[in-house]
Amino acid sequence: MGTKSLKNRDEMVHIEKIEELEKLAKLIRYYILVSTTEAGSGHPTSSLSATDLMTGLLFGGIFRFDIHNHDHPNNDRLIFSKGHASPLLYSLWAAAGILSENELMNLRKFDSPLEGHPTAAFPYAEAATGSLGQGLPIGLGMALNARYIDMLSYRTYVLLGDSEMAEGSQWEALQIATHYGLHNLIGILDVNRLGQRGETMYGHDLDAYSKRVSSFGWKTILIDGHSFSEILAAYERAFHILDKPVMIIARTIKGKGISFLEDRNGWHGKALNKEELSEALKELGSVDKSITGKILGQDDLKPEEKMPGEAPEINYPMDKPVATRKAYGNAIARIFPEFPDMVVLDAEVSNSTYSEIFSKKYPERFFEMYIAEQNMVGTALGLAARGKIPFVSTFAAFFTRAFDQIRMSQYSGSRANIKFAGSHAGVSIGEDGPSQMGLEDIAMFRTILNGVVLYPSDAVSTEKLVKEAAEHKGIVYIRTTRKDTSILYHEKENFVIGGSKVLRKSDKDIVTIIAAGVTLHEALAACDELKKENISIRVIDLYSIKPLDEATLNEAAMDTRALITVEDHFLEGGIGEAVRSALAEHTVPVYSLAVRKMPKSGKPGELLDYEGISREAIITKVKELI
Amino acid sequence: MGTKSLKNRDEMVHIEKIEELEKLAKLIRYYILVSTTEAGSGHPTSSLSATDLMTGLLFGGIFRFDIHNHDHPNNDRLIFSKGHASPLLYSLWAAAGILSENELMNLRKFDSPLEGHPTAAFPYAEAATGSLGQGLPIGLGMALNARYIDMLSYRTYVLLGDSEMAEGSQWEALQIATHYGLHNLIGILDVNRLGQRGETMYGHDLDAYSKRVSSFGWKTILIDGHSFSEILAAYERAFHILDKPVMIIARTIKGKGISFLEDRNGWHGKALNKEELSEALKELGSVDKSITGKILGQDDLKPEEKMPGEAPEINYPMDKPVATRKAYGNAIARIFPEFPDMVVLDAEVSNSTYSEIFSKKYPERFFEMYIAEQNMVGTALGLAARGKIPFVSTFAAFFTRAFDQIRMSQYSGSRANIKFAGSHAGVSIGEDGPSQMGLEDIAMFRTILNGVVLYPSDAVSTEKLVKEAAEHKGIVYIRTTRKDTSILYHEKENFVIGGSKVLRKSDKDIVTIIAAGVTLHEALAACDELKKENISIRVIDLYSIKPLDEATLNEAAMDTRALITVEDHFLEGGIGEAVRSALAEHTVPVYSLAVRKMPKSGKPGELLDYEGISREAIITKVKELI
Repeated sequence: MGTKSLKNRDEMVHIEKIEELEKLAKLIRYYILVSTTEAGSGHPTSSLSATDLMTGLLFGGIFRFDIHNHDHPNNDRLIFSKGHASPLLYSLWAAAGILSENELMNLRKFDSPLEGHPTAAFPYAEAATGSLGQGLPIGLGMALNARYIDMLSYRTYVLLGDSEMAEGSQWEALQIATHYGLHNLIGILDVNRLGQRGETMYGHDLDAYSKRVSSFGWKTILIDGHSFSEILAAYERAFHILDKPVMIIARTIKGKGISFLEDRNGWHGKALNKEELSEALKELGSVDKSITGKILGQDDLKPEEKMPGEAPEINYPMDKPVATRKAYGNAIARIFPEFPDMVVLDAEVSNSTYSEIFSKKYPERFFEMYIAEQNMVGTALGLAARGKIPFVSTFAAFFTRAFDQIRMSQYSGSRANIKFAGSHAGVSIGEDGPSQMGLEDIAMFRTILNGVVLYPSDAVSTEKLVKEAAEHKGIVYIRTTRKDTSILYHEKENFVIGGSKVLRKSDKDIVTIIAAGVTLHEALAACDELKKENISIRVIDLYSIKPLDEATLNEAAMDTRALITVEDHFLEGGIGEAVRSALAEHTVPVYSLAVRKMPKSGKPGELLDYEGISREAIITKVKELI
Repeated sequence: MGTKSLKNRDEMVHIEKIEELEKLAKLIRYYILVSTTEAGSGHPTSSLSATDLMTGLLFGGIFRFDIHNHDHPNNDRLIFSKGHASPLLYSLWAAAGILSENELMNLRKFDSPLEGHPTAAFPYAEAATGSLGQGLPIGLGMALNARYIDMLSYRTYVLLGDSEMAEGSQWEALQIATHYGLHNLIGILDVNRLGQRGETMYGHDLDAYSKRVSSFGWKTILIDGHSFSEILAAYERAFHILDKPVMIIARTIKGKGISFLEDRNGWHGKALNKEELSEALKELGSVDKSITGKILGQDDLKPEEKMPGEAPEINYPMDKPVATRKAYGNAIARIFPEFPDMVVLDAEVSNSTYSEIFSKKYPERFFEMYIAEQNMVGTALGLAARGKIPFVSTFAAFFTRAFDQIRMSQYSGSRANIKFAGSHAGVSIGEDGPSQMGLEDIAMFRTILNGVVLYPSDAVSTEKLVKEAAEHKGIVYIRTTRKDTSILYHEKENFVIGGSKVLRKSDKDIVTIIAAGVTLHEALAACDELKKENISIRVIDLYSIKPLDEATLNEAAMDTRALITVEDHFLEGGIGEAVRSALAEHTVPVYSLAVRKMPKSGKPGELLDYEGISREAIITKVKELI
């Protein structure tokens, strides 16, 4: 009798909870519809399919979040990988009392933080999304942080669309999450059957997803995504699975709740017009705007504070050439005590990028990301968003694999405090051939707004610039070279982002050579050669390509007859174009020696000659100009 | 009795065949070892693990190939996705009599077609590889061609490394191959346990791969990759599987055949020195250089010849604005009769890129590639390598997802006859926000050596340039705009790659505006506005950004006081820098109006103003200069 009445009481509570969730879901559907119609565009139907899933998560007693401190280190995290469901995201936070209906009505407007797809402008978004297949890797980074670095109990939830499961990046994240045993990562797959232009590959076949996802080592839970009982039960189960990541695979209806939108093709990315809206609202019935969804608070835990220590001194004998990639490895290992938030990731080439120097010294802060660059960059963003300073390395060429993730990270604003290190720059890698040569990496990273591009030429400047990168808040790219290069600088020399070094200068300089990396060494050799013929040239080490040292370049433009840039990179978007843009209003000609012929295998020296970026090519060009 | 002796005879033949394969494998191992030692670098151990698998395939009576006509349309295709096993690839063809031992000894040398990783220089390579995870998508394109376009019996084999299975692109290809039922695609997974810097995620656990791959709808066959009986039996089985693609998953030993290399870490990408080589060759024993591996010929089938027809005329009323993305869709559908080798691929956004106009008219030549851009580009390369002209579309922003595949395709040389069409360029897309804005696509495609970048501003020029793209042999990128733009040109106007149009010109031009796409319309409006104040400016439509019309730019640089480029693209690597590079030796200043502030959601007009690329911004800049 006692048990039965207790059970009845539990049931009553459960029924009340579900009624409350239903009311909230109705309000949220209302918000989605009115805000998108007001905006005149947006994705209401993709939002409606996930409404019950998200309402259940946030307001069903699962999600733990201090709504007054969105940055609390132990908050659960929620990432909308299907970023086009942003009207739902904003409506959820409106239902939680964080946004007013008026603010919602500014959706997609110029001055509103509620952008068409979530960006850093809306801090509850955790990360910018909207290019599909990126949320799971970001969530993975946050889950990795909870489990291995901050040692906190928070969970990371990622809302996924079914269409985006076609992206390979998802499967990269699925495998790595299993590899690191991230049971604190929970995916919620909104299988609404319809993509942008029609049915997905698997339609409503939940088993097709389950088979694939579980083969990757995840626990899968299949539910009706519009049944709050099933939704709550699934989250409850997921909460108690402690040996593997969990994917809740939910059958949903696109446009759910409005009959003329439900499961219909042709309604993707389309707002209702005023008449359609009024019909939809009639169908929805009266909504209670006075209710507020309650989100449970999280345990007030903080990560252990790490006190910065002191890094040992730099020490490179002047007479012993060292590859800058190796100096990079030395540097990250050396400065770690000073930057205890550092984390190092590498895509299975740590013995080439030399991040292995760090991994051997601080294995607990090194994460092998295997040959899956997209996921690696997403993971880095997740870590950075949780206050870490990720240093991410692979061959410069292979960062092209993650250009979309790199591009998107800038829209996460200050959270994207990521340091990229690309080794094996240019044709000077030699025999391995063009597939391994980074020849477009400067162009790629230069396009990142507010991004920094550094290209050290010796071990000392590499060490200094790696530290500058760690100190700088934002996206930094460091380009390193495969082969050994001589030491150019004394260890007391100072290097700053936006700086340069004038290495050869006299009153008689006819021409200025601007270079970095291997070509700087070629320029210095050319300078010495020309000096024998009494030809003076200026040589600038442009170690900071973005931002660049306009003052020094301007001075050179005034002092000398012409500038010659020399770079082991394709002409387009490289150092030459960076310098031209900086000097656009000058009338000095800027000649560019760059990689212009189809690169191939060969000895480094042969290739520098072939591409016309060797000391001989510089000498020839200088003589042509005088 | 009769049956038994027949069986014995079969067994004898089988034993002889295996003995022959073992001899060949020994010779091939010899070639691998001596050629890499001579080169002083390369990947002998990764080659040795796959030697038996490949020897069995080519010389075991499975592979069908006319060795004197590597381009025969019905040849079986073999792609080394693990491109670092190139010493094996070259040694196989040496064993087949295509290369001499002397030629092999030029491996990785400057003048040799035998590059460190396969490129177009070696025509038997089918495609350049070396950036991992790219071979399966390329093979998919070839298999798609066999099954759906050329209707030929050839099979496509792809040799895969175990490490590269971590790349998401593999899983994109696996799912799409199943979707299109490509039983003529056979993967051979060389599970040698060791990646570059240590063990792979799954080591020698073949089941881990089998579970995952078969969950994606492939038939898997698990074998010992060093047993010729098992190898031949697996190929035989694969040959008869007609309902799904097949993955042969082989347990192999890295460095197989040389005891001190076998299964050892630290031997990746490392050639033996002379002493080690002599030890290795001693162990290998005597090799018979007189033998030649026989490759069976293929049925001499050819695809049905398609006679080019005539395309209908272009017809756009001058007074009705049309989005260039829509004109793109119209154009590919219109010109198809003239280019019967065209194939159209799209990443699930055909209703936005308007490739759906083609798909509705020619469904048999349209392939839905779903949201998996990397695989889409690889597939396009595979199709192009088989003589097709693929037109590949998605949002301009999402081509960044496939930058590595795009970059790599240029190393496949003339086979990479691919046309990329990126829609939704720039901030002028408006409300959807930055994640959907292509703002780095020009920079990205400009880095492709010999690549062409086109950016039409109206429907007529789009139609003309799409045809130019189809006629041009090589990589072409076409950038289109979301919103409607007015018709600028008469349908008889001529457009060529490398051309431009001077739309406003007088003797009194003070400044030249160079623009394309939406900003060209802004420039024309600014020009009209300024005319009212008696200020004359020149306006150039730079529809061909690479190559660009230097003559016309030079003339403008001579005639006017300054040039102003205006572009809906980030400053870096865009039109401004392209123009500056073209005019580097001029003394005219080139000012650049481009996207320099963090883009966001808003109305197109608001965003053009915000970024300083609207007509008002142009007018202000011009007035500043006069």
